[in-house]
This record gives sequence, structure tokens and C-alpha cells, in this order.
Amino acid sequence: MKIMVINGPNLNMLGIREKNIYGTKSYDGICNEIKIKAEEKNHDIDIFQSNIEGEIINLIHKAYFEKYDGIIINPGAYTHYSIAIYDALKSIDIKVIEVHLSNIHQREEFRHKSVTAPACIGQICGFGHYGYILAIDALENYTD
Amino acid sequence: MKIMVINGPNLNMLGIREKNIYGTKSYDGICNEIKIKAEEKNHDIDIFQSNIEGEIINLIHKAYFEKYDGIIINPGAYTHYSIAIYDALKSIDIKVIEVHLSNIHQREEFRHKSVTAPACIGQICGFGHYGYILAIDALENYTD
Amino acid sequence: MKIMVINGPNLNMLGIREKNIYGTKSYDGICNEIKIKAEEKNHDIDIFQSNIEGEIINLIHKAYFEKYDGIIINPGAYTHYSIAIYDALKSIDIKVIEVHLSNIHQREEFRHKSVTAPACIGQICGFGHYGYILAIDALENYTD
Amino acid sequence: MKIMVINGPNLNMLGIREKNIYGTKSYDGICNEIKIKAEEKNHDIDIFQSNIEGEIINLIHKAYFEKYDGIIINPGAYTHYSIAIYDALKSIDIKVIEVHLSNIHQREEFRHKSVTAPACIGQICGFGHYGYILAIDALENYTD
Amino acid sequence: MKIMVINGPNLNMLGIREKNIYGTKSYDGICNEIKIKAEEKNHDIDIFQSNIEGEIINLIHKAYFEKYDGIIINPGAYTHYSIAIYDALKSIDIKVIEVHLSNIHQREEFRHKSVTAPACIGQICGFGHYGYILAIDALENYTD
Amino acid sequence: MKIMVINGPNLNMLGIREKNIYGTKSYDGICNEIKIKAEEKNHDIDIFQSNIEGEIINLIHKAYFEKYDGIIINPGAYTHYSIAIYDALKSIDIKVIEVHLSNIHQREEFRHKSVTAPACIGQICGFGHYGYILAIDALENYTD
Amino acid sequence: MKIMVINGPNLNMLGIREKNIYGTKSYDGICNEIKIKAEEKNHDIDIFQSNIEGEIINLIHKAYFEKYDGIIINPGAYTHYSIAIYDALKSIDIKVIEVHLSNIHQREEFRHKSVTAPACIGQICGFGHYGYILAIDALENYTD
Amino acid sequence: MKIMVINGPNLNMLGIREKNIYGTKSYDGICNEIKIKAEEKNHDIDIFQSNIEGEIINLIHKAYFEKYDGIIINPGAYTHYSIAIYDALKSIDIKVIEVHLSNIHQREEFRHKSVTAPACIGQICGFGHYGYILAIDALENYTD
Amino acid sequence: MKIMVINGPNLNMLGIREKNIYGTKSYDGICNEIKIKAEEKNHDIDIFQSNIEGEIINLIHKAYFEKYDGIIINPGAYTHYSIAIYDALKSIDIKVIEVHLSNIHQREEFRHKSVTAPACIGQICGFGHYGYILAIDALENYTD
Amino acid sequence: MKIMVINGPNLNMLGIREKNIYGTKSYDGICNEIKIKAEEKNHDIDIFQSNIEGEIINLIHKAYFEKYDGIIINPGAYTHYSIAIYDALKSIDIKVIEVHLSNIHQREEFRHKSVTAPACIGQICGFGHYGYILAIDALENYTD
Amino acid sequence: MKIMVINGPNLNMLGIREKNIYGTKSYDGICNEIKIKAEEKNHDIDIFQSNIEGEIINLIHKAYFEKYDGIIINPGAYTHYSIAIYDALKSIDIKVIEVHLSNIHQREEFRHKSVTAPACIGQICGFGHYGYILAIDALENYTD
Amino acid sequence: MKIMVINGPNLNMLGIREKNIYGTKSYDGICNEIKIKAEEKNHDIDIFQSNIEGEIINLIHKAYFEKYDGIIINPGAYTHYSIAIYDALKSIDIKVIEVHLSNIHQREEFRHKSVTAPACIGQICGFGHYGYILAIDALENYTD
Repeated sequence: MKIMVINGPNLNMLGIREKNIYGTKSYDGICNEIKIKAEEKNHDIDIFQSNIEGEIINLIHKAYFEKYDGIIINPGAYTHYSIAIYDALKSIDIKVIEVHLSNIHQREEFRHKSVTAPACIGQICGFGHYGYILAIDALENYTD
Repeated sequence: MKIMVINGPNLNMLGIREKNIYGTKSYDGICNEIKIKAEEKNHDIDIFQSNIEGEIINLIHKAYFEKYDGIIINPGAYTHYSIAIYDALKSIDIKVIEVHLSNIHQREEFRHKSVTAPACIGQICGFGHYGYILAIDALENYTD
Repeated sequence: MKIMVINGPNLNMLGIREKNIYGTKSYDGICNEIKIKAEEKNHDIDIFQSNIEGEIINLIHKAYFEKYDGIIINPGAYTHYSIAIYDALKSIDIKVIEVHLSNIHQREEFRHKSVTAPACIGQICGFGHYGYILAIDALENYTD
Repeated sequence: MKIMVINGPNLNMLGIREKNIYGTKSYDGICNEIKIKAEEKNHDIDIFQSNIEGEIINLIHKAYFEKYDGIIINPGAYTHYSIAIYDALKSIDIKVIEVHLSNIHQREEFRHKSVTAPACIGQICGFGHYGYILAIDALENYTD
Repeated sequence: MKIMVINGPNLNMLGIREKNIYGTKSYDGICNEIKIKAEEKNHDIDIFQSNIEGEIINLIHKAYFEKYDGIIINPGAYTHYSIAIYDALKSIDIKVIEVHLSNIHQREEFRHKSVTAPACIGQICGFGHYGYILAIDALENYTD
Repeated sequence: MKIMVINGPNLNMLGIREKNIYGTKSYDGICNEIKIKAEEKNHDIDIFQSNIEGEIINLIHKAYFEKYDGIIINPGAYTHYSIAIYDALKSIDIKVIEVHLSNIHQREEFRHKSVTAPACIGQICGFGHYGYILAIDALENYTD
Repeated sequence: MKIMVINGPNLNMLGIREKNIYGTKSYDGICNEIKIKAEEKNHDIDIFQSNIEGEIINLIHKAYFEKYDGIIINPGAYTHYSIAIYDALKSIDIKVIEVHLSNIHQREEFRHKSVTAPACIGQICGFGHYGYILAIDALENYTD
Repeated sequence: MKIMVINGPNLNMLGIREKNIYGTKSYDGICNEIKIKAEEKNHDIDIFQSNIEGEIINLIHKAYFEKYDGIIINPGAYTHYSIAIYDALKSIDIKVIEVHLSNIHQREEFRHKSVTAPACIGQICGFGHYGYILAIDALENYTD
Repeated sequence: MKIMVINGPNLNMLGIREKNIYGTKSYDGICNEIKIKAEEKNHDIDIFQSNIEGEIINLIHKAYFEKYDGIIINPGAYTHYSIAIYDALKSIDIKVIEVHLSNIHQREEFRHKSVTAPACIGQICGFGHYGYILAIDALENYTD
Repeated sequence: MKIMVINGPNLNMLGIREKNIYGTKSYDGICNEIKIKAEEKNHDIDIFQSNIEGEIINLIHKAYFEKYDGIIINPGAYTHYSIAIYDALKSIDIKVIEVHLSNIHQREEFRHKSVTAPACIGQICGFGHYGYILAIDALENYTD
Repeated sequence: MKIMVINGPNLNMLGIREKNIYGTKSYDGICNEIKIKAEEKNHDIDIFQSNIEGEIINLIHKAYFEKYDGIIINPGAYTHYSIAIYDALKSIDIKVIEVHLSNIHQREEFRHKSVTAPACIGQICGFGHYGYILAIDALENYTD
Repeated sequence: MKIMVINGPNLNMLGIREKNIYGTKSYDGICNEIKIKAEEKNHDIDIFQSNIEGEIINLIHKAYFEKYDGIIINPGAYTHYSIAIYDALKSIDIKVIEVHLSNIHQREEFRHKSVTAPACIGQICGFGHYGYILAIDALENYTD
């Protein structure tokens, strides 16, 4: 499978940012772990990060034009208000899984609602960076 | 008249994106039709598209500095939450018309509300790409 | 095309009523302009006005039985609460366009919501009586 | 018993109107079935239909002055906002039953609420025109 | 002064309708008392009643064309949802006073809000039919 | 027809419980009347009562496995919050009718909403225990 | 009649305070007009003003102990949130009329709701200080 | 690891129930797949199902007393309103993962909110019965 | 007096469950203290606990049939949503007091509302298990 | 113990005020009963009453400076909106118990919410003046 | 400049009250620092504190009559509900600045809203008592 | 101190944009004034402006990596919905002050709420560009 991982705003600050919530592993460290796991399973994986909502949309479109088989997306804070990313995900016919590091249901009220999840096949949250590994597994095993 | 057309997020995906809602014409095809119509009427027209909220704001400012007579804007999903685009439209004294391809009142509850429309002279929705042609006509015939 | 124009409550007071919002042209003057334009384009047009919600429903039914090709409706204040008119428009299979003289999005909160628009193919607002002329054009050029 | 049946807006369009919801039987056909049933049971029945809210109120007052024993009312869309009909029903001391052809609880959120039902002895919905037959039975067997 | 009194839905049922709220005086009796009082003060008074929202709008327009000096209106249940009557009152430049027989603040939540009162100079409620007498006095003594 | 009647919480207290609302007939008395009526019409009827939400779900499943033709359910207070019972009713393809003894629209705000009714073909309320008799009639005469 | 007039917060600033809303007459001038009118009609009138919610409550209790026949109260801003004043008015069995100088329905949303009015026999608003004169008349003519 | 799987209301109807949402595999078939997978990984797994909210609470307590290492729970419809199950999960110090077969974010508004998820370490939804397999993997790899 | 104490879901976990909120005393220890106190005062006391909503309803009915003089109920989480328990308490004419160990007003928003308390004579919260002792005292001294 | 009892607005009217809710005992009578009970138990008790929100705050501060061991407060109507009293209670480290004579959960919706209770250790309501006696007992027996 | 500083409820408890939020400096110490700073800048400054809403209104009126040039107000908890103080500030034409010691946006939801700030020229919050020093500077440098 | 000033969308249009709200000074003029003031005080100051939400996040991250001592941010319209900027501010441990030129509490309802302010130490609004000067002062004098 050809998989694109898209990380949204502030995920580049992992390891620095609110460690009690997001853990102490650096963003690069986490990317490496995901890549190693994906390669073990013979997937072709690309990881992108952007703080800009519109660039995340560009990446989603790129996934369409470059024929990715699946997207794993962590839209960060945009999860909770970006109808534009929701629309981008609806624009394409690729399987998408939404991942969150923290359990968004344990945090502020405004994080309980995901506007992007309805455009995904499923959502995984609360397992730290291991959620990405689970998402790869889920992509492999998903059937309509 | 010197007219700027600004298209927001995911409009570049027309012809690919949810065809039952947005139709099968490609984005380039639609742009061509608008240009031909505008030229028939001797207007000077420029069409821009961006997925990035802030670049749409930049375009609105550009319309001010480059003395456009009118703006036709389809802010896509940003219609429903971009106070920043609303503020940009309020910053300038150019006539602006908001266009939507689909009838936003027939869709999800969150699409019924436009936060940008109050900064426009009017709104046209539901007529597919023909809405842009109507908007050119409206710009020509608008009087305070 | 055989077109019915239906104007709702208080539109008979145009030219008298809140002129800063609705302009100074009289209701009869506006009707004449619409008729002239429609005749130029060889349409068969009938314009009705009523302040009574149920009579507007009667007119919608009449359009069905007398085989009109299109309806242009400005339901006035009923736009914002008449589920009965919404139901009437859903009862028939004629193309309907909703028109408002003012930009309803710039006015009181309660005018931002249209309960009748979801039963129409589209909506045009903010262009004064020129909105009716645009609506005729839209009816001609609408394709599903 | 002397029974008045009052049908509200758009019920005259039965058989034409959204057939997947309201069925294919014509309004006249349904009225006949109700009348036949009522006559079998020796009731004196009158069926009225109006699209005008105020005329429905007039009918309710008429039922009072002409000493009807019961009213079966389907206020159509007015069910959901006509406080005026609610007040009319509260003005009189006749037993009233509210009937809806469709199961209003399965439809749009705004149809779940009846403002008129609190002024009735009960409500029957979802059984198509057979609901009127049930209502006649209920009127016969109702005891405070 | 030339004064029009407009009474809305179900006020014709006074003396019959919920007597614990509206009292036992008949509608005709109340009209007589108002007329006698108005004549004592040398006013020219006309009292109308309608259950139909649109006819109340017609009456308001009539007041404009027939140059009444003041309107006393009791819109009954329409008080709480008729934006169309609100618009009618805004269409004209006659002094209008809203009257309610009962103290609407002591009743159901939905009666606490008046959508028509913002188009009036003031509101009087809770004094039974004597409210009309007070309103005549208020019309005489009102200065901007 | 093979019919299951399911009564929810506190219905076993009929005749004891708030008699001004629910009447003075005992629960057993009511069950007898229903059974007699059903037998007259040659139906095979079973009446169950439980105060436990999950047991009501078990009964609904049982109706499926034991091939009942119809269910008449009065979910009592669970009507207003049991999504689990709603899901159970959606799980099966049996015709279900919801019955309430009292007119739920005349009571506390929280009783106006039924979360279970959208999974039924229709609802009957306000006619005391006679509602069950009407429901049997409705089951017999219902056609999609 | 022995009448107490209670004026709430900021009414002592009349003539100084937002003149476009409250007029240019001084507080003392208004009090004099009210007293003159009351004396003409042989009433025994006392006018109090306080900016302190609790002192207004003390005055209401005083009216009870000193056997006033009626209270005319303008609770100023406390109208919109003082449940304590509402409770005070409910504590006594004196006829109370609520008066507002401005038409509270034409102003900010939060002024549309009166928490104190349900404890009064009626409310008069929008007629400037003439409202107090009307209230005296209303007290004289009120019958349950 | 010693793992308890708890399935809530209507999950016993899998394979029968709304197949377009929940798939065609039978409940027993799914349980078997989970057990096989767990045994491959040398876990000690017990699967329970109940339609009764309180019995689910009993099972959670049992997990505590019998020293399970982890719980995988699909509370079915109780997810959306059972504060009692939330409290039960908070009562114990076992790692809990919430699983849903369907993507709850794509369904009715009331299914978007989970009241039980805040008491879990994470949530997995949308992957059908494969979600349970992912949850086992997540339990193995979870670190605070 | 013959008193029934009913404890709802998760109260059996006292001493184990969130000790910072509920304290460290075991459930059995608390029951013993209550019993000793009651016996000192010569009351006949029975303490029940159930995690099942419907069994709590059964206990309430049992209190009626076995002629208890008073009920002390801690409905646990059901306090906040069980209309069924509320209805059960309304079904009987026994004095009921609601007790909570914690001060529910200091906790999550959803715990501030009690749907069961309106069916009780009063509520005591925040005093840990001593609240039960206070409730016994209150039952003894309550007079309508 | 040195105990301060603070009674808020309108409690001085007990015995006069809405007797069906608050009973017929006079305020002084109730104070005496509380004092006698407190003295029996060798407490040093002071009872204050004020209708003025700010004076209640002054009393709370006084309790701090004069080293009271406990406060029993009935903030009357201020319970429902006085954030200032809430803040005052949070300012000090004295044990406070909130008491209400009536069962606030049985009354108007706005009385269900207490903004002051979260600053107290607990709340007792519905037992008339006996609630104060229970509160003294609770103060004696409270342990964190 | 002649400046009045008005401090609302519980500010007299500074140094005692919730020190983690409000700091350890005593109220008198803070007043001294403000006075020293103001005198350095040759301002004439008066600092008042009251726990009584109405007395704060009296102080605002006093500022008007004694011709103060500016007011610095910290309305404490009244910030969030005192429309009466808002009205008082609107009554006068003096420049007013609202100051809060804590960052009200970081605290309870109900503290995020200021009803008094719209009557001020600006607001400063979160800088402890240094906010008053900033406000003096702002008063000096404010130009419309 | 090393200070970063970040200005959000449309602030580059100062002097052009809605001058009645934002004043007539050009953006460059304002930047110069801030720089001069900062240099007088020996601060090292950098001023950035961007219309793009994600670039503002990039600047916040840059402040972290380049070890700024303080940030003064005016997020423009993003103030009211950018959870992503809020998260960025929470990611770093630099002191941040939020500044607004206008008094946001005097404007549209949606501007009253700041989603970014809870991540700042404080907020200053309503003093035009002088707010930035006050913020520099506040940064210098802030102590936790």
C-alpha cells in the first residue's frame, strides 16, 4: 500500500509541547517509528506536517492525484472546526483514518466534536503515537 | 469593469469532487466559460483559486490595491466560519457578490449560515457555475 | 416559458415601506419592469401578490394545475417561518427560485434563516428588484 | 355524534404531493372513505380543508357555535408553529383529536414538536388516512 | 384623532374563551365600552377583528392609506411569531400601541416574547379590556 | 395475527399511580380488556411488563425470534431517553406501534420528545387504555 | 388610594442619562408631575428611588406593613435579573404595576425579558414618564 | 494478559440488525474471531454481552474483583447516556478501551457524543469487528 | 418508623471507588453505621443496593406494597437521567429523601441537575455517609 | 462551636410570604427554635438577615475576621445568581452549609441551579426550618 | 487628572482570598502602590471599595457630579451580571477603564463574559494589581 | 528583553480599513511608534504580520526556537475561532499578551469571546495602537 500520513498544526512541537498530554518523544522520533513499522510491512509511506489549513487540503488533493491507497490524518486543532478539510476529504475516494494522540473525550468540551471524522472510515484516539501503527493495521484490514 | 473572481478551498477539485452535488464540469472548463462570457461583455476578468484562507485575504487586499471594480467570491467551506475573510471584505470598498454552486440551504445545517455574506452586496446560490454569469450581470446592474 | 411571480406580505408597500432598505421604486413600477423584460425574452409571465400565507399556498397549487414552467417567489417575512409554504413548494415539481430584495444576511438574525429556500433550486438576494430579472435568466439556464 | 374534520394546508394535494411520504390516494378518495365509515357508524360528519391559518380558526369557532360533538384536526404544517390554532382549540370545550398521516417523529426535527396537540385530548400519527378512522373510534370511546 | 383598533385571532371569542384568563365580558360588550370612551373624547374610532394574519396586514396598510393617526393593536397569538405583521407595522409611520388583555409575562414561556412590540411605541398588558382605554390615553399624550 | 404488547416501567402500578393522570383502572383489569378484545378479533396476544430497560430489549428480540407479526409498546419513561430500546426496535423488521395512556404533549417538556417513536410505524397517545385497542386496529389495517 | 412609587437604579439620573432614550426631563421634574396628577385624583402618593436592590426589597416590605393599596415599580436594570425583587413582590398581596420609560422590546435582547413582571398585575412600557400616570389610572380601574 | 470484552445492548443481534451499518457477520462468528486472535497472542479472554445497563456495571465490578488486566467495552447505545457506566469505569483502575463497530461520527447527532469515553484510555470506531483486534493490540502497547 | 434505604449504581464500590471523592469507608461499614443509628432510634430499617435501574424501581414499588413509612434514596448516577425512577417515586405516597455523599454542585455540570429530587420531599448532599443519618432525622421531623 | 446563620432576601417575611410554600411560622419564631436547639448543644450562635447582597458579603467577611467555626447560609433568591456571594464564600476557609426551606427542585426551573452551593461543603433543602437544625448537626459531624 | 478607582465585591479580601489566583499582597498595600504611582504622575486619585452593587452605582454617579476625569473600575463578580452597573456607566460621559487582577478568560466559563465592559473604553486583565498602573497610563494616553 | 509582536489578518490594512473602528494611522506608522518606544526602553523588538493562520503558528514556534522573552499578539479575527493558535501558544513557555485595537466587548457578539486569551497571561483591548505600548510595559512588570 501507498500511504500518506498528514499531521496538522503544532504536531511538529511534539516532545516540547504540553508533555503531560502529548508525551516526551520528539516529532522526528515518532516519524521514524512509524516509517520503520510501515517498511517492515512493505508499505510505501510518506509523512507530511503543516501548520497551514490550506496546505493540508493541498496534501489531500495530492494524495488523490498521486494515487495513494490510504491516508492517516491527525488534523490537530483543525479537527474541531475545519469544514474545509472535511470537504477536501469528501472530494476524494481514498480510505482515510483519523488519529489523535490524546483521548480527545477527556479534554476540553470543544475537543469532543470532530468535524473531520465523518469524512473518514474511522477514528482512533488516546494511544499516543501508537495510534498511527494501529491505523496502518486498520487500513490493511478494512473492508466496506 | 475590472472583475476579480476568487474561488476558495476544494473548488479546484470540481469535476472530481462529489459530482452529485457539484456537477461533472472540470474547474478549468468552468473558468473558461466565465472568461468567454466576461470578454463578450468587455470586462477585464481575473480568476484565482486558493485553498488557504490567508491567501484569499491577500487576494481581497490585492483587489483593493489594484483597483478592481468588483469581486465575485465563492469562499467554499470558509463561508461558514472565516471571520477573517469577512473582515477582509469589510476592509475594502469594492462591490462583492457571494456565489455558491449548490443550494446551501438544502444541505447540512452548518452550511445554512454564511459569515461572509453580510460583507457582500448580495448572494446567489444553487445555479451551479451559471451563478458566476449571473453575478457578472448583477455587478453591472447594481445600484445602491 | 410560462412563469409565475409570487410576492408575499408587504411587498405591495414597496416605495412607501422602509425606503433605506427596500428602495423608492413603487411596487407597480417594479412589476412593469419585470413584465417588460420577460416579454422581451418571449416569456408568458403572471405576477401575484398576497399578504395571506394560505393564498400564497393556493397560488403555488395553481401553478401546478395550470402547468407553469417556473416560479419566482419572494415570500417576504414568511420566508423565515412558513413551513406551510415550504410544504407547498415540495408538493409540486416545478422549478422555483427564491428572491429577496435586500441582503437578508446583513439584517436581523431571524432573517438569516430561510425555511422555504430548501424547497427551491436556488436563492438570489441583495440586488433589489433586479433580482427578479436575474431569476428569469437563471430559470432559463438551469439544468439539474 | 356530529363530527367536524378539519384538514390544513396542502392536504388538498394528497395523491400529487410527495407520494413516498403521503401515499398515492387522492384527497377526494380519502374524504369519501372517511365519510362512508362515519355513516356506517351513524355519525353526522363534515369535512373541511383550508390552506389559510385564520380560516381554520374560523372553522374551529364554527364547530363551537354549531354544537359539534367532536373535531378531528390535521393542521398540516401549522401543527408546528400555529399558537393561534392552539388558542382557538383552547377557546372551546369540544373534544379534539389531532391526526397526522405520516409518523412525524421519523421526519425533520421541526416536525417532532406539535404546538397544537396540548389543546387536544390525544394524537394519532403514522397510519396514513386510516388515522381518521381510528380517530372516529377514539372519539366514540373517549372518557375523561 | 382617527384611531384604528385591530384585534387578532380568537378575540371574537371573548366571554366564551378561557374565562379565568380573559374574563366574562363578551367581545361586543368590550367594543362598545371602547367606542363610548373614544366618543366621549371626540375620537373617530374603528374596531376590526380578524383571525387571518394577512388580513391584519391589510388593515395596517389600510390605516396608512386612509390616514389614521394611531393604531391600537392586540395581535393575539400572532404577537409571538408574526414577523409579517412586524414588517407591516414597520412599513408605515403611524403611532402604534400594542395591548394584551392578560399579563403575558405570567403565562407560558412562549408568550413572554413579542415580535411585534419592537415596531410599536409601547406596550400595555394585564389590565383586561381597560388596556384599550389606557392606550387611547397614551396615544393622546405620546410625544417622541 | 400474533401480537406482543410490551409495557415499560411503572405501568404495573396503574390504578395506584397518579390517578388523575393515569386513571383508576388496575393494570390487570386493563390487560384483561385488551386480551378480550384481541381474542374477539382472533389475534394471538401476549402482554409483558418490565421495569428494566434491558429486559424490554430482550422482549423485542424475543418477538423477532418467535416471529410475532406486530408489537404494541408503551415504553413508559424510557420513551424519552432510551436509545437502546430505539436501537432494539430498529434491529427487527416487525411492525411496532407506540402507545401512551396520557397525552404526552400536555405534560412536562421532557415528555414531548419520543426517542423511540421514530423506530415505530406510528404513535397513539391520550386515550387511556383504549389506545391499545386502537393500536390493534391500526396493526390490522396498516399498509406501507 | 395610598400608592407607593418605587424607582430603581439610575432613574435618579434622568435628564442626564442617555437622553435619546430616556428624554431630557429631570428626575425631580418627573416626580413633581406624578405627584400633581395623583393629588388631583386625591391619592396619597409616596415616591422612592434607590440604586440598591435590597433597599428596593425593603421598600416593598414597607408597603406591606404600612398598608399601601398599590405599588408602581420601575425596577430599572434589576427588571432583567432580580429574582429577589420578584420574590419580594410575591411575598405581599398588594396590586403592583411595572412601568418602563422606554420600549424595552426595541432595545438590547437582554432587556426583552422581565423577571419581575410575572409578580405584577400588568406592565406598561414605552410612554416615557407618562407611563406612571397611566399606571395610576390602571390601579384605579383594575378588577381581578 | 487477562482481558474482558463487554458488549452492550443489541450487539447480540449482529448479523440480523441493520446490516448496512453493522455488517452481515453473526455475533457468534465475531466472538470466535476475537477469541482466536487473542489466543494466538496468548491472552486469556472472556466475552460477555448484556442488554441491561446494570449488568454491564456488574461486569465492570467483576473485572475489578477478578483482577483483569484490561477491558474492551462496546457499550452500544448506552455510550451516549449512561453516566452510571461512566461512573463504574471510573471506580476501577483497569485500562479500558472503548470500541464501536460503526463510525459514530457519520451517524445521528446524538451518537457523536460518548459519555463513557472519558473514563477510557482511548476509543476506536468505524472498523467493524476488526476494532476489537486493534483494541487488543492497543492494550498490549499502551503506556501512560 | 419502617424505613427503606435504596442505594443505586456503584455505591457497592465505596471504599474502592474514587476515594478522594467518596471517602475510604467500605460500603458494608457504612451500612452498619446507618443500621446502628436507626436501631438506637427504634426504627425498622432495610438497606438495598442495586446497579440496575429497573430493580430500583421494583424496590420503590415494594416499599409501597410493604407499607414502609419512609424511603432514603441515593440513586447514584441515575439521579441525573432516570425519569423512570422519578415516575416510580411519583407513583407512591411515601415520604422520600434524596441523599448524595458528595456535593454534586461542586462536580461536573451534568451532576448539578437532579431529575429525581422533584419527587422527593427534600435533598441532602455533601456530608458523606453522615447524610443518611441526617435523612433519618429529617424523616422523623418532617411535617407537610 | 461558634456558628453564624445568614438569611438572605425576603426571609424576614416568613409567616407572611407565600405560606403554601414557606409555611406559617413567623421569622422570629423560627430564629428562636434554632437558638434554643443550638444552646442545648452548647453552641454560640448568631443569626443575621439582610435583603442586601453586599451586606451578606460583609457578614461572610465578618465571620472570617471574628473566627466563626461554621456558617449556615440561606441566600434566598441570591442563590441563583449571586456570583459575588459565591466569591465571598470562596474567600474564606470556614465550613459553610447551604439551607433552603423549600425543595428548590420542585419549583421554577431557575431555582434548580445554585451558584453558591459549589462554595459550600453541602446543601440541605426541602425540610422547612428544620433544615437549620439538620445543618447544625451536619457542621458538628462533618469531616473532610 | 482627577481619577476615581472603584473596587467591587471581595476585593477588600485581597491577600486573604484565594491567593493562588489573586496573590498575597494585601488590599491596603495595593491601594498604596496605586496612590504612590498616581501621585508621581501628579494625578488626584481616590480609591473606593464596596461590596454593595448599588453603592458602586452611587460612586459612579458621584464621579459625574464631582467632575472626575476618569474612572478605573474593577467590578469584581458584578462584572458578569450587573446590568445596573452597566447602565450607570452609560449614564455618564466619563472615560472608564475596566481592570481585572486575574485573566478572566482562563477561569470559569461564566467569567469570560463582561456585561460592564461595553460601557468602558477598554479592558485590561491578567496583570494583577499592575493592571491599575497600566490603566492610569491608558487614561492619560487615550484619544477617541 | 527580546520581544516578538505578531499581528494577524487584515492588520496590514490599518489606515484603510473601517477607520471609524480602527483609526486612520497607517500600519507602518503604528509599527514605527512601537519600535521607537521599545528601543527607548532598550528592548529588542521584531514585528511580523500575516494573514495566514498557519504562518502565525510558525511565528509562535519561531519565538520558541529563537528564545524570545515575550510575545505581544493581536490575532485579529482568528482570536475568535483559532484553536490552532491557542494550541501553539500553549506549546511554548513564553509570556504572551493579547492586544486588540478596538474594545471587542462593544462589537458583534462573536467578538466577545477570545479562544486564544486563555493561553496568554493577560489581555488589553480598546486603546488603539497604544495597547501595544501598554503591553510592553506589562511584559516588563509581570510576575507570576
